[in-house]
Amino acid sequence: MMREDPRIERSRQVILRAALAELGEVGYGAFTIESVAARAGVGKSTIYRHWREKIALIADAFQTFHEEELSDVSTGSPREKLERIVRHVAEIVSDSIFSKCIPALIDGAARAPEVHAFYHRFQAEARQPLIDVIAEGIALGDFRAGIDPALAGVAILGAIFYRRLMTNETFDPDRAAELIETVLGKP
Amino acid sequence: MMREDPRIERSRQVILRAALAELGEVGYGAFTIESVAARAGVGKSTIYRHWREKIALIADAFQTFHEEELSDVSTGSPREKLERIVRHVAEIVSDSIFSKCIPALIDGAARAPEVHAFYHRFQAEARQPLIDVIAEGIALGDFRAGIDPALAGVAILGAIFYRRLMTNETFDPDRAAELIETVLGKP
Repeated sequence: MMREDPRIERSRQVILRAALAELGEVGYGAFTIESVAARAGVGKSTIYRHWREKIALIADAFQTFHEEELSDVSTGSPREKLERIVRHVAEIVSDSIFSKCIPALIDGAARAPEVHAFYHRFQAEARQPLIDVIAEGIALGDFRAGIDPALAGVAILGAIFYRRLMTNETFDPDRAAELIETVLGKP
Repeated sequence: MMREDPRIERSRQVILRAALAELGEVGYGAFTIESVAARAGVGKSTIYRHWREKIALIADAFQTFHEEELSDVSTGSPREKLERIVRHVAEIVSDSIFSKCIPALIDGAARAPEVHAFYHRFQAEARQPLIDVIAEGIALGDFRAGIDPALAGVAILGAIFYRRLMTNETFDPDRAAELIETVLGKP
């Protein structure tokens, strides 16, 4: 990998964080490159040089911080890996720079085709490792046979997102194992 | 029950439907009494006479049409009742005058305290019959013991809402029984 100029990389991170903070605060409709520039303390031409559309800036921010945040699924049984993923999703969905952006992206997806395309693709990629681990667990006999891994996966993810968006309390990451047992049965 | 003047009741229904259509189309931030009045073909004073705030109008619309839509849970086993509820929720969340309002209310709840209070109270009331039926099924031995009915309930509801909001396809109501079996096991 080529070594980037650290000042450029630092400025890029500041801009991407400012974009997520702005999106979470004002929503997609009111989000502008100008307000991100003001928040990041840079000129708007600095942003336009790298990201021509607001969705490109948002997508880059999600991609960049998501990659830093991936769960380690290199070791352990399928149930252990799944618990690691579910706990991590619960932490991020409860309280993170992403968490505050979820309502903005859901609403943006209903009104702007470019948000719809980006957000649904992002979520599909983000949930795939979880679905793969459930499928692996079914194949190895960790989870019961005859269930659809994608359906079990959205029941688990759905519980976490539903709590965040439709109730007054977020899903407690310490209940990851219990949620897995509820949907997939005990070990 | 007192008999209402049918013209007044008809006009009320037209205004409430216009409110939901407007909310789904423009979102909570851009929603105004004026645009609902224009859509319903009434003067804005007609609306202000009955609903002084936009959240009162939206809450009344949700309450009115929700009551018309309640699932019948008077007969059947807990599993049969649950399947009826889940199918019904899937139909409404997939395609209804409510469905298009969900993103607007989620985003509104993140930005306006009055939407947060209304929407979370509405969802809490709406999901209670489903949680009660799961608890009844556990007590009667239809569903396995040792699970938290509220957690199983949000896994089931979460799957339906997650599909609607985070994927390109809504949850197929014909899969209601399979979703119940995935989360609560086979009969």
